[in-house]
Amino acid sequence: MRARVARPDAVVLLSGGMDSATCLAIAARRSRRVHALSVVYGQRHDREIASARALARFFHAKSHVVLRLPIGPLLDSAPTDRRRRLPGRRSGGASSAIPPTYVPARNTIFLGIALAHAESVRADRIYLGVNAVDYSGYPDCRPEYLDAFRRLARLATKRGVEGRPCRIEAPLLRLSKSEIVQWGEKLRVPWERTWSCYAGGRAPCGRCDSCRLRALGFRQAGVTDPLLSPRRARRRGRA
Amino acid sequence: MRARVARPDAVVLLSGGMDSATCLAIAARRSRRVHALSVVYGQRHDREIASARALARFFHAKSHVVLRLPIGPLLDSAPTDRRRRLPGRRSGGASSAIPPTYVPARNTIFLGIALAHAESVRADRIYLGVNAVDYSGYPDCRPEYLDAFRRLARLATKRGVEGRPCRIEAPLLRLSKSEIVQWGEKLRVPWERTWSCYAGGRAPCGRCDSCRLRALGFRQAGVTDPLLSPRRARRRGRA
Repeated sequence: MRARVARPDAVVLLSGGMDSATCLAIAARRSRRVHALSVVYGQRHDREIASARALARFFHAKSHVVLRLPIGPLLDSAPTDRRRRLPGRRSGGASSAIPPTYVPARNTIFLGIALAHAESVRADRIYLGVNAVDYSGYPDCRPEYLDAFRRLARLATKRGVEGRPCRIEAPLLRLSKSEIVQWGEKLRVPWERTWSCYAGGRAPCGRCDSCRLRALGFRQAGVTDPLLSPRRARRRGRA
Repeated sequence: MRARVARPDAVVLLSGGMDSATCLAIAARRSRRVHALSVVYGQRHDREIASARALARFFHAKSHVVLRLPIGPLLDSAPTDRRRRLPGRRSGGASSAIPPTYVPARNTIFLGIALAHAESVRADRIYLGVNAVDYSGYPDCRPEYLDAFRRLARLATKRGVEGRPCRIEAPLLRLSKSEIVQWGEKLRVPWERTWSCYAGGRAPCGRCDSCRLRALGFRQAGVTDPLLSPRRARRRGRA
């Protein structure tokens, strides 16, 4: 009898945006079971959580934990502070300046929670949809940050000490937004169930950074965003 | 006119136990302002939070944030799971085995939140009362773990990218419990306001690991624990 290599279980950080949706599709393909994990920290785009729930169902996640972290008041940053205006277009070069939507240490908190969850559900992988090209302004979306977190994960946990550290997978890290759309298309990501807008309205505002990057990605990939054309989405039988 | 070097501001992770109380006393001495931060994650020893509040007042913390993190259900570990028996005495060598009270990735989550808070209140230091000697079984209390987190902090945040990373201070790291008691005595830590017991009763159980380590520390330091002898504490005029 030949030994079968079991596919690993995975925890997927799922915001409900197009990147984390694609990441979930990738993880679902590569894993035996996926456990979705959404962290809500009082940001304006709560609407994403409804998307996250729909996506977790769509990809048959074994579990989906939505964790409400009351850290909003601790943070001094645009996505959690309703009094501040959201940036329409970035000032300065997108590759050098830190965007006003930066949330201090966000990925460190998210990955720390994912690490705890992965150890509890005995998952061998953590997937997150960070992307260094479109969001190079965020310090915690860079490859060197992720490498530092991988090193930390080896030292921080029982699994790591026992020589079986949880692997941190960021498959979208070096892709452009249009490459993410193309990969997502291949994996049949239901884009109409994703949500990217920062503004928190019932329809995407079309003006915030996130809406603009999404629109650019779809345009460059030659794909129509079904979220913006519901009729087409219905024709695809997914809405 | 000579340039004055301003003392830095600090965020102190404050559980309410004797180590974090001593750490707060050290930070208060070395800092211009201290911001206390307590993270409650549904563990049994909620009683510590009342102690944390009393200690923050005692040391004139500029602010004290108590953050309730509903991560209990995510974790598979003794301090958050009331169904499990707490360990009385450690099985095996305390220096090699990971204790059953281990909470996966706990310090990574705590330090991530402290990092976010420090960046928001513009603090230059984070103090935490981890201690590698008494708790060598916890992977995230080791010096190499802290070094990895320091590296991460430099990469994770705006401050780090700008060349002013927040410093992570763990002044108790290499001290024994009795050395901590001695240092705390010098700084007049009000021990009667601290809380160490894991059992969550109204009085310390005296049997859990934490109670035993505390008792040993006081005994070896030749100091009477006022928490166990309230009359003496009143004589010291602090109760």
